[in-house]
Amino acid sequence: MAGFKLQLLDLEADGDLAALNPATASEIGAVAGGRVAIGCRGSLYGARVILAPSIGKDVVAVTKTLYDRLRDCSLVEVKPLEFPESFDALRRRLRGEPLSESDYKRLVGDIVAGFYDEAQIAGFLVSQVFNPLGSDELSYLIRAMVETGVVVKFPEVVYDEHSIGGVPGNSKVALLVVPIVASHGLLIPKTSSRAITSPAGTADTMEVLARVTFTPQEVHDIALRTRGVIVWGGALGLAPADDIFVRVERRLDIDPTTQMVASILAKKLAMSVTRLVVDIPFGSGAKVETEDAAVGLASLFLGQAKRLGLTMRVALTYGGEPIGVSIGPALEAREALETLMKGEGSPSYVEKACSLAGLVLEMAGVAPRGQGYGAACEALRSGAAYRKFREMIEAQEGDPDVKPEDIRLAREEFTLAAPRDGVVSSISNRAVSLAARAAGAPGDKGAGILLHAKTGHRVRKGDPLLTIYASSKARLHEALRIIEESNAVVVEGVVVKVLP
Amino acid sequence: MAGFKLQLLDLEADGDLAALNPATASEIGAVAGGRVAIGCRGSLYGARVILAPSIGKDVVAVTKTLYDRLRDCSLVEVKPLEFPESFDALRRRLRGEPLSESDYKRLVGDIVAGFYDEAQIAGFLVSQVFNPLGSDELSYLIRAMVETGVVVKFPEVVYDEHSIGGVPGNSKVALLVVPIVASHGLLIPKTSSRAITSPAGTADTMEVLARVTFTPQEVHDIALRTRGVIVWGGALGLAPADDIFVRVERRLDIDPTTQMVASILAKKLAMSVTRLVVDIPFGSGAKVETEDAAVGLASLFLGQAKRLGLTMRVALTYGGEPIGVSIGPALEAREALETLMKGEGSPSYVEKACSLAGLVLEMAGVAPRGQGYGAACEALRSGAAYRKFREMIEAQEGDPDVKPEDIRLAREEFTLAAPRDGVVSSISNRAVSLAARAAGAPGDKGAGILLHAKTGHRVRKGDPLLTIYASSKARLHEALRIIEESNAVVVEGVVVKVLP
Repeated sequence: MAGFKLQLLDLEADGDLAALNPATASEIGAVAGGRVAIGCRGSLYGARVILAPSIGKDVVAVTKTLYDRLRDCSLVEVKPLEFPESFDALRRRLRGEPLSESDYKRLVGDIVAGFYDEAQIAGFLVSQVFNPLGSDELSYLIRAMVETGVVVKFPEVVYDEHSIGGVPGNSKVALLVVPIVASHGLLIPKTSSRAITSPAGTADTMEVLARVTFTPQEVHDIALRTRGVIVWGGALGLAPADDIFVRVERRLDIDPTTQMVASILAKKLAMSVTRLVVDIPFGSGAKVETEDAAVGLASLFLGQAKRLGLTMRVALTYGGEPIGVSIGPALEAREALETLMKGEGSPSYVEKACSLAGLVLEMAGVAPRGQGYGAACEALRSGAAYRKFREMIEAQEGDPDVKPEDIRLAREEFTLAAPRDGVVSSISNRAVSLAARAAGAPGDKGAGILLHAKTGHRVRKGDPLLTIYASSKARLHEALRIIEESNAVVVEGVVVKVLP
Repeated sequence: MAGFKLQLLDLEADGDLAALNPATASEIGAVAGGRVAIGCRGSLYGARVILAPSIGKDVVAVTKTLYDRLRDCSLVEVKPLEFPESFDALRRRLRGEPLSESDYKRLVGDIVAGFYDEAQIAGFLVSQVFNPLGSDELSYLIRAMVETGVVVKFPEVVYDEHSIGGVPGNSKVALLVVPIVASHGLLIPKTSSRAITSPAGTADTMEVLARVTFTPQEVHDIALRTRGVIVWGGALGLAPADDIFVRVERRLDIDPTTQMVASILAKKLAMSVTRLVVDIPFGSGAKVETEDAAVGLASLFLGQAKRLGLTMRVALTYGGEPIGVSIGPALEAREALETLMKGEGSPSYVEKACSLAGLVLEMAGVAPRGQGYGAACEALRSGAAYRKFREMIEAQEGDPDVKPEDIRLAREEFTLAAPRDGVVSSISNRAVSLAARAAGAPGDKGAGILLHAKTGHRVRKGDPLLTIYASSKARLHEALRIIEESNAVVVEGVVVKVLP
C-alpha cells in the first residue's frame, strides 16, 4: 500500500483524479471509478480512480489540487476506500434516522477530505429534500462545516446581509447594500456564491467589475481598509464542504431548504459575522412561493441564529418578479454601476437595496429603528455609496473608473416587441431565469436578459419588451423559444373582456 | 459543434470519458466534470468531460466503449449537455410527484444514452427510498427498462427462479435450482447479477466455475442445447439501465424496494421469461426483516406480474441466518459443487433449493402441486442435477471435471474458536456479510467466510466456529475485528442463568 511515487496528472476534472496502472490497481484492490485515499504520515485525501496503462507500476499520478496537497510526501500510500468510516451515518440518514453531533463531524470531515463521491453526496442532499434536517441536526451540520475550514477573525463587530436568492436580477442587490453599509463605517466583508440554479450569483456579477478570488488574509486586510468587500466565498476555504455540496446540488438542480440555511450560515460564521440581515424574497416562481412558507423559513433561520449566537433580522421581500431590469452577470453589473453613479435607478432595485442596508444600519445603531431606509437611500443619493464602491473595486483590483458602457455584453441580441397595446400584467421569474441560462448565463457573463418594461407598465404594440443577449445564435434561439413558449411577459389590453 | 476527429483515450473509468483540449472545451461551453453528447447523424451518447492540454484542438478522445459505439462516424459532433431533455421528469419526482409513462420512456432512454451523471441517477434512486414508486410508475419503469435494451426470444415457454437476496450464502442457491429444473427438461436461462451490497451475487459465484459473460445469441443457443444456463445479466444488454442503476446503488449501499422489483422483472422480461418463482428470504439482518414486510413485497411483485403478463409464484423463505455454510464466491461455488456431487449437503441449503426448484416444476405441471419438492430432491439425490450442471459448466466453457478441492481460496486464513462449551444461539447475517466483504469478497473471489457450526449446534470450548479467508493480513484483521466486535456468532451455555 505504501511507497508509490507521486506524479502530476495533466488532466482536469471537477474533483481529484488518481491514475493508476491497471495491474497496480488490481493488486491493491482499487477499481476504475472507485475512490482511493492517498497521502503520507496519516494525512489522507480522496481521489477518483482512473486506470491508465501508460502509468508506471510504482506510480500514482494525481491532478493538480491533490498534487499540491501532497507536495511534502516523498512517497505516498494509496489504499482503496470502499466506504468512508463515516458512511454508517449516511446509511442511517437514508433510513430516515436523525444524526448526532459526532456523526456530522465525521461525515463532513470525510466529505472535505474527498472521501465521498458525487453519488454519495447526492444521497445526503436528496435525503434533505424528502426529510429535512431537524434543528439539532442543522446546528451540528453548520458547526461541522465551519470547523472543517478556515475561520477569518476580525478585531471588531462584523455585519453582513445575505439573500437566499431565487429571484432573477437579485444578484446585484449586494452591489448596492455593501457600499451603502460600508460608507457608514461598518465592517461588511461579504462572501457570496456563484449561481447554483440561477442565471447569476453575486460573485459572478461582482467579477464583471473586479477580482473576487482572494486568500483569507487578503480579504481580511482589504476589508479592514475599505470596510466592505464582495468576494467569492468558494476560494477562501471557508466551510469548504459547502462548495462540494453546491457542485452536486447544481447537477441535480436542487437546493434543499435545510442545506441552503446551513450553507449560508456556515459561510457567515466562518467570516466571524455576528450581525446578519437575511433577505427572503417570496412570490410566484421564487424559491419560496408564499408568505407562509417565507415565515416558516424565517423561523428556521432565527432558530439557528439563536443556537449559533448570531444576532439576526430577517426581511421577507417581494419576489414575484425580477429585481430591477437586468438578469445575467454583465447586465446586472451594469445596472448596479449606473444606479450607484446616478444615485437612483429602477424602483424595485433601489427600494430593496436601501431597505436591506437600512436594516443593517439599524442593527448597528447607526440609524434608529424605522430610519435605516432613509439613511441608506441618502448614502446612495449623495454619492457616498458610489465613492465607497470605487474604493472596493480598486481594492479588489478592478478599474474604479469603469463606466456602464464599458461592460461587454454577449454578441448576439434580439429584442422582443409588444404584440399589442396594453399593460404588462406579469413577468415570469421562472421563464426569465430559464431563458437567461439558455442564453448562456452565468458561464457566459455577457449573456442575459434586459427588461424594457415591468409589471404595470403601459406599452404600445411594437414597443420593446425585453432584449436577450447570447453568445451564439443557437443559444439566442433557444432562449427566445423559452420566452415565447412560456409567455414570459404577458401584455393585456386595458379592456380585458367585453360581454355581448 | 460538429466536425471533431475521434481518438481512442487509453484510460478506463466506470463510465465513458471524453477528453478535450481546455481551449476547445471553453469554446463549445463544456466544463470539466460536466457532460457532453457526442455522435453523428443524430445518434448521440453521453460522456463525462476531462480536460487534457495534450489533446489536439480539433480532437475529442473517448474511452473504449464509446469509441466502439462511434466507430462509424467519420467526424463527430460534441455538445455540452447541461440537463438532459428528460430532466424535468426527475425534477418533478424530486418534488414528490408521480411520473407518467412517457416520462419514464424519456428518462430511461436518456440514462441508457449516458446523458445522466451519477449524482443525478442517485437523485432518482434516493427519491425511491423516501417516496417509493407507485404501481403505475413501477410498470412504466419496468417497460421502459425492457424497451431500451436487448430482448432474447425463445421458441418455447421460459421458466426462471429469482431470489431478492440479502442473506449471506444465498448466491449458491441458483447453482442447485437451475440444474434441477433443467434436468427435468424445462428451459431456464437464468441471468443473474453480481453482488450489489452483499459478499457474492450468483454471477460472481458461477464465474468461479465457468464463463458468465456471453452475447445474447450465445445464451440463446446454449440454453436451447442444455436447457439451463447461469450467466451474468449485465453483459447481455438486457435492460441496460439496470446496470447503471446498480453501479450507483452500490456506491450508496442502497437497494430501494421499488427499484429492486424493477431490476428483477425487467431482466426477466428481457429474457422472455413468462413463468417465474420469486424467493423472498426474510429475517433479522436480511433485506426484509419481518414476515409482514415480506408479504407486502410479495404483493408488490404479484401486482406487477399481473400487469406485465407474468405467471408468478412467490416463496417467503427463512432468511434469519446464512444459507448453507459458505459466504463468498469461491466458498459458495465449492459448497454448491460438493452438494451436487454428493446429492446432499447442508440442510438449510438443500431444502431451500429443492423447495424453489419444486415450485418451478409444479408451475410447469412436471410435478403435481405439493410434490415439486420431492421431485426436485430426487433430481439432486440421483445425480441428474449434477450431470446437468456438468453440461452447463462445459457449455459455459468451464471445466466439467472440476473438483471442490480445485477451487482456490484466499491465501490468508484464520479460524475462530468457540469461547466456551454451549450451543450456537445466533449468527448475525449483517456481521457475516460485512466481514466477508471486509475480507475482500466479492472482488476477491477466494475471500469469504466458512461456518463450522450453525444455530442450534452444540460446540465445545476451542471447537472451530468459523474460518475467514482473505487476500491480505490487513483484510483478515479487519474481517476478524468485525466478527468479534459485532458478536457475529453467539455461543450460550446450556444453563443460561442461575438465580441465587
